Amino acid sequence: MGFREHLEEMVHSVDGAVAASVMGFDGIAIDTVDVSANGTGDVDIQTMLVEYTNILSQLRQAAEVLESGKVTELSIGTEKLTTLARALTDEYFAVLAVAPEANLGKARYVLRINAPKIKAEL
Amino acid sequence: MGFREHLEEMVHSVDGAVAASVMGFDGIAIDTVDVSANGTGDVDIQTMLVEYTNILSQLRQAAEVLESGKVTELSIGTEKLTTLARALTDEYFAVLAVAPEANLGKARYVLRINAPKIKAEL
Repeated sequence: MGFREHLEEMVHSVDGAVAASVMGFDGIAIDTVDVSANGTGDVDIQTMLVEYTNILSQLRQAAEVLESGKVTELSIGTEKLTTLARALTDEYFAVLAVAPEANLGKARYVLRINAPKIKAEL
Repeated sequence: MGFREHLEEMVHSVDGAVAASVMGFDGIAIDTVDVSANGTGDVDIQTMLVEYTNILSQLRQAAEVLESGKVTELSIGTEKLTTLARALTDEYFAVLAVAPEANLGKARYVLRINAPKIKAEL
């Protein structure tokens, strides 16, 4: 399986999932499965991912200064969308975005079990 | 009850909780219960909260641009600490920091049920 299959598996495993992506910390997506047309249609997922990558990069720098260890996981909840991100390597991370009413525990779990599978394909 | 009681209640309700705080988006804490001396002692909680406030403020700006609705919740996981933040008003937010091995679902729940109580005291 390639990235895409894992991304599709993540999106299909969680009710209310809107998008899954493998992103570089430079803000460039390797691959994205975006089914937001089915739901939270007015949020521009691609632009959001770039903005969040920027935030995640800053967090990594902050974590270094704070000596709090590497950033492993990030979750950002807004009124329209909850976005989970999980570091894969020093260069890439995986993202799963879900509707606010989705089961966040399930989404976190699905992202966690798929992360090593995606990492193995990098 | 004042802020402090709610913050103490949060810290005592979650095994592995390290600190709880009510912060302004300007990075100034109203009150903080910090029991990190018991555990994750080498992370400077106060400095971390200021750094994370900065990140949260940027997220709020990004959310406005992205039209994804207000930022309601943020969770940042590092190797040494997981920090949950929840918006209370446009000026203040509540924070609960826990050890990585703590029950994150419980921490999220405790923060969620205490947030309106803290808000009522603002």
